[in-house]
Amino acid sequence: MTSPTMVNAYTPGAGNLSAEDQARVARRARLLGPAYRLFYETPVHLVRGEGVWLYDAEGKAYLDCYNNVASLGHCHPHVVAATTRQSAIYASHTRYLNDTVLDYAERLLATFPQALNHVMFTCTGSEANDLALRIAFAHTEGTGVIVTENAYHGVTLSTAAMSPSLGAGVPLGAHVRTVPAPSDGQFTAHVQAAIHDLQRHGIKPAALLVDTIFSSDGVYADPAGFLKPAVEAIRDAGGLFIADEVQPGFARTGAAMWGFQRHGLIPDMVSMGKPMGNGYPVAGLALKASVIQNFGNRARYFNTFGGNAVAAATAMAVLEVIEGEGLRANAASVGTYFRDGLLALAQTQDSLGPLRAAGLFLGQDIVTDGKPDAKKAARVVNRMRENGVLISATGPQGHVLKIRPPLIFRPEHVDHVLDSLTAALT
Amino acid sequence: MTSPTMVNAYTPGAGNLSAEDQARVARRARLLGPAYRLFYETPVHLVRGEGVWLYDAEGKAYLDCYNNVASLGHCHPHVVAATTRQSAIYASHTRYLNDTVLDYAERLLATFPQALNHVMFTCTGSEANDLALRIAFAHTEGTGVIVTENAYHGVTLSTAAMSPSLGAGVPLGAHVRTVPAPSDGQFTAHVQAAIHDLQRHGIKPAALLVDTIFSSDGVYADPAGFLKPAVEAIRDAGGLFIADEVQPGFARTGAAMWGFQRHGLIPDMVSMGKPMGNGYPVAGLALKASVIQNFGNRARYFNTFGGNAVAAATAMAVLEVIEGEGLRANAASVGTYFRDGLLALAQTQDSLGPLRAAGLFLGQDIVTDGKPDAKKAARVVNRMRENGVLISATGPQGHVLKIRPPLIFRPEHVDHVLDSLTAALT
Repeated sequence: MTSPTMVNAYTPGAGNLSAEDQARVARRARLLGPAYRLFYETPVHLVRGEGVWLYDAEGKAYLDCYNNVASLGHCHPHVVAATTRQSAIYASHTRYLNDTVLDYAERLLATFPQALNHVMFTCTGSEANDLALRIAFAHTEGTGVIVTENAYHGVTLSTAAMSPSLGAGVPLGAHVRTVPAPSDGQFTAHVQAAIHDLQRHGIKPAALLVDTIFSSDGVYADPAGFLKPAVEAIRDAGGLFIADEVQPGFARTGAAMWGFQRHGLIPDMVSMGKPMGNGYPVAGLALKASVIQNFGNRARYFNTFGGNAVAAATAMAVLEVIEGEGLRANAASVGTYFRDGLLALAQTQDSLGPLRAAGLFLGQDIVTDGKPDAKKAARVVNRMRENGVLISATGPQGHVLKIRPPLIFRPEHVDHVLDSLTAALT
Repeated sequence: MTSPTMVNAYTPGAGNLSAEDQARVARRARLLGPAYRLFYETPVHLVRGEGVWLYDAEGKAYLDCYNNVASLGHCHPHVVAATTRQSAIYASHTRYLNDTVLDYAERLLATFPQALNHVMFTCTGSEANDLALRIAFAHTEGTGVIVTENAYHGVTLSTAAMSPSLGAGVPLGAHVRTVPAPSDGQFTAHVQAAIHDLQRHGIKPAALLVDTIFSSDGVYADPAGFLKPAVEAIRDAGGLFIADEVQPGFARTGAAMWGFQRHGLIPDMVSMGKPMGNGYPVAGLALKASVIQNFGNRARYFNTFGGNAVAAATAMAVLEVIEGEGLRANAASVGTYFRDGLLALAQTQDSLGPLRAAGLFLGQDIVTDGKPDAKKAARVVNRMRENGVLISATGPQGHVLKIRPPLIFRPEHVDHVLDSLTAALT
């Protein structure tokens, strides 16, 4: 099942917009055209960000519990300083020798298991997943790809064709198979069935590609280790396992730097993006040396902006902050505090159904009489926005609150969110 | 005919590298893997850029006559200031209302004919061309694409499949047809033949996609207007014309802001990238409202970093500099000075064959006895690098000197390049 329309999208003409913001929405449609969407029943007009806070044009503060790009907090001074410093010195690309990108590559690879010993740089997570496909196709000489039913892996032609969450208007590729989200303990069996179906159609399996926290499927982190037999199944069929860490990566799940680590496995490739530069467009792909041989023999890779010196210096600053401010440990402890707070609230709030979480990535089902209730979830999301807390909803039915605060969140921020949620529910 | 190997690529083990740079090359291969390439027989280790100059680790200066990203000169202070200012204030995405991206969109669209009235933002030229394909497929319900024989349009799976210059190891799509570079006055006839061939195979033509200065084919700008009947042919067949302005755009050709303007036509879509942020990863697609309707009805478009507030502020600063410093006019006048200088030099240098140029984009054939000589071109490129001038070579046979200096080039810089070229030829 896929969402025909986007969860938490603004409906033009609706909402409670000022005359100025109505004009802004009209100007936006005139300039950017009909494919762009805004968030919320009443869109937010934002002008400033600092730490966990975003501010609108009237100075109203919003606690950011959603944006996983500014993962160190908005406009983190150490990162801004790195961007500024390097932009003024040297910004060029990877076809000249320069240590900045190599120093970053080395430090980034040190966060991975040793078998993942190369890294390639792109500008976006879409490009990273797209490159992973090219490499998987070259390595396996197959084209079959298995993704989850409500997956999102990117907006390039090839990654959109394996992103069912984009809706029925974006057709899946003929070589793509979907499996249900891992909610029923049958994930490996579903993957095996998809492998058989690909083979039955004469399509050689190339890859199992999953977001290791299944963000758009509704957040599935447990039981730890459930991915491992599915990965063995795709490898037995000659395919690769690509971990999409664009959302769970860079310490968000608290227990580890990367989401796949909770499953006790080593992917063949790992794509990353969003929080990698805390807002600067930088993304990449870590991979095993064996996997890139065929591609490297036949093709070269150059991404004009990918791995440029400013990208590398900025991304290096992000790693320094994650390590220097102890943000993995903070994501773990504040994530636990958040989860416990939601579980406690669920004792008195019947609308709070199952909660799935790892560190500071939380998926909270909204239910009525125990059944998924997307309308109520939308109401909660929009009431919280009115109360100055930004979250969103996700999942194939749109009833899962998607909560992804910056990794610098503190317990008092969690209390603020829980108060806002309580008010929105009552 | 395609180049099996990359023109002007470093051959590992060759060259005249210091022990330190040998170690750097080895470290690079260990970290980035086998798909990355360096420029030159002896790669350059660069650490600083300022204006038209790049500097290596020993302080040696190189006159940059190649990098069309830092089109305003390296580390332009007005652009760096804009990046710095906006990075510290607000950096978020297009799903909130924010004027920065709208102000930029408006100013950017003002540089286009009125019919191109929407703009969509990506991070790279690859993503812009990839998005153009998705939109063309949705609009035409066809998939056939026509490109030139040595075209380069990007590194995503779908754009690489229509980039023959990437070499025989990167297969073209079954729905892709190539036409010879426009060197024989038969461009329209070739496009018509490709249309017929697509139709004969039951493939509906979706687009003719060309770099309007045919950069990787060897630089073809004249006669002005030659593209127009080819564009009419693809439209007659129900397809769209996509102008890839990633290289010629933003005033490089001198006569106009966009390369297509010399051909007296209005494209259906225009992709842009490289110089758009003078090094910051920002790119985009300008298009006619009619073209995006089908796509907008079925799909939404969101690019996490595309059109973020820092990208928009940085790109705005680039437009301000192009206009404020009169760089289009400078590209025209210094480009003419450059062309005249090369033509004069050709009077005494038999190795200088035909020259093709528009503004500060020049393609100079290197010949022996009037025949293309790629080896000699490589020798010239590498001798100039030793003499502190950076250019490269291009074209299907690799014998075309590719000269693309920053738009701030002055006549004395041209004199410097011509002196270096003369020395390299003798």
